[in-house]
Amino acid sequence: MECRNKNVFDMKVDVLYHFGLASDTNDLKKMFGDVKFVLMGGSPKRMKKIAERLLAEFKVELPCGTGLTNIAGATDRYELYKVGPILSVSHGMGIPSISILLHEMAKLLWHAGCEDVIFIRLGTCGGLGLEPGSVVVTTDCVDCCFENFLQLKILGKSVQRPARLDCQLVQELIEISKSIAHDYTVIAGQTMCANDFYEEQGRLDGAICEYSKEEKLEFLKKAYSLGVRNIEMESLGFAAFCQHLGIRAAVLCVTLVDRLKSDQIDAPHHVIHAWQERPLEILIAYLKKHLAL
Amino acid sequence: MECRNKNVFDMKVDVLYHFGLASDTNDLKKMFGDVKFVLMGGSPKRMKKIAERLLAEFKVELPCGTGLTNIAGATDRYELYKVGPILSVSHGMGIPSISILLHEMAKLLWHAGCEDVIFIRLGTCGGLGLEPGSVVVTTDCVDCCFENFLQLKILGKSVQRPARLDCQLVQELIEISKSIAHDYTVIAGQTMCANDFYEEQGRLDGAICEYSKEEKLEFLKKAYSLGVRNIEMESLGFAAFCQHLGIRAAVLCVTLVDRLKSDQIDAPHHVIHAWQERPLEILIAYLKKHLAL
Repeated sequence: MECRNKNVFDMKVDVLYHFGLASDTNDLKKMFGDVKFVLMGGSPKRMKKIAERLLAEFKVELPCGTGLTNIAGATDRYELYKVGPILSVSHGMGIPSISILLHEMAKLLWHAGCEDVIFIRLGTCGGLGLEPGSVVVTTDCVDCCFENFLQLKILGKSVQRPARLDCQLVQELIEISKSIAHDYTVIAGQTMCANDFYEEQGRLDGAICEYSKEEKLEFLKKAYSLGVRNIEMESLGFAAFCQHLGIRAAVLCVTLVDRLKSDQIDAPHHVIHAWQERPLEILIAYLKKHLAL
Repeated sequence: MECRNKNVFDMKVDVLYHFGLASDTNDLKKMFGDVKFVLMGGSPKRMKKIAERLLAEFKVELPCGTGLTNIAGATDRYELYKVGPILSVSHGMGIPSISILLHEMAKLLWHAGCEDVIFIRLGTCGGLGLEPGSVVVTTDCVDCCFENFLQLKILGKSVQRPARLDCQLVQELIEISKSIAHDYTVIAGQTMCANDFYEEQGRLDGAICEYSKEEKLEFLKKAYSLGVRNIEMESLGFAAFCQHLGIRAAVLCVTLVDRLKSDQIDAPHHVIHAWQERPLEILIAYLKKHLAL
């Protein structure tokens, strides 16, 4: 893992505050030195379940007398689980929340001496023109003004960072999905990343809505015509960070609603849960190909 | 509670997705009709502890045979507790995360028929020129380019919303603090709201840092000279939303570090926990004045 900040080299102690870990009190090399994949998703419960599934799937042995533990349990900002060379970690909602995780995860893996680690975000999203339950593998990201970069305000100045994901990884995931996704659609597409769930995504059902149904549809149809296939809230920050540090990365999201038809997510819980397994199935097939466990 | 969206009036069912509640399956009027105050903070564990403290402080009786329960327990996006007329709810980290909560909370209180509800955010932050452990009551908010409005991208166009908080509430909280805060500072000040913890806040210890220590200090000193006294990650979205809907609102944050001197939060956990009680003490005194419990 590359660290693009020479200051970190000189720090006697690096407190990874939002993980509740530190470079002096934790042997990060011993704890994390073998990590090859970091899976991220919004919900802590979900990322724990994914860790449990990976444990069953890969038959990784945990150290004698231990169970699956939230390694970041000293705080409650994120939950972090380790299954052999795979980390499963929750990132909360929105770019700022995932941004903190990305900075601290990159430093953690750098302290641990890891190399060639791949970051993968598994999420839920709104789809455009897709049957709910479809999976979108993100090619690149735009914001809600169709700008294809992340805008940060650093020391009072606007900074733009491009947000493309690894084409080879996208192709490989799509290829793998062909042998798995028999009853649902998996496509590669552009992802729109919003800073809220209601107004920026053109929903009609927030506490504030100052546009008409027609204006909303015009916006979403324009997005579709420009190549956008799904809308979520983290990909732009995730992709820009990974691209900037040269980390290979992918985003796989399942659509819970077709935004050209509806705003509310009213599918029954068990249906949503079943849909959520789809990106994971593709990912597990990918991991099985790349990990000799 | 005002609802600025006529579409909501016509919806047969309103699914408050991130709370796991809905207007048909939950009797929102019965559950929430008496709410007068909504307390918000980033951490779920903290908001549960605050609810427990309120329960002890106000001797509210919970319905027979029940304990304090996370009302949003069907999901794990937020934790929501109710102690008589007070809600205590976690909002996660960053403007997008608190924005979802604000939309769904405003709709929930509107469905419940609540009036004159006050929203208060209790948080932690970095301070500027203040002894760590000081409390800042926010007067108004700026972003990291010193713009005093929230910028949203709605249907592809940039929209600006001012973000001033209730002056009278600020004054009252400052006044109340005088009889409580004997060994620490409480001030009213401008809050800078960042979209990440590292680069936008000018920290030197992120995974990416492309400026010098001198440039960082110049930026923070400029912020100080313009009236900024603390930096956190939610106030701008919170204030802009509340101002737009005419909700009286306040932000009280305790500083964990003086950013003019350091970046890392390395105070011991028990010290941080003690500091976190300070905004709560002020708030409890305020609530005691306004609630006949």
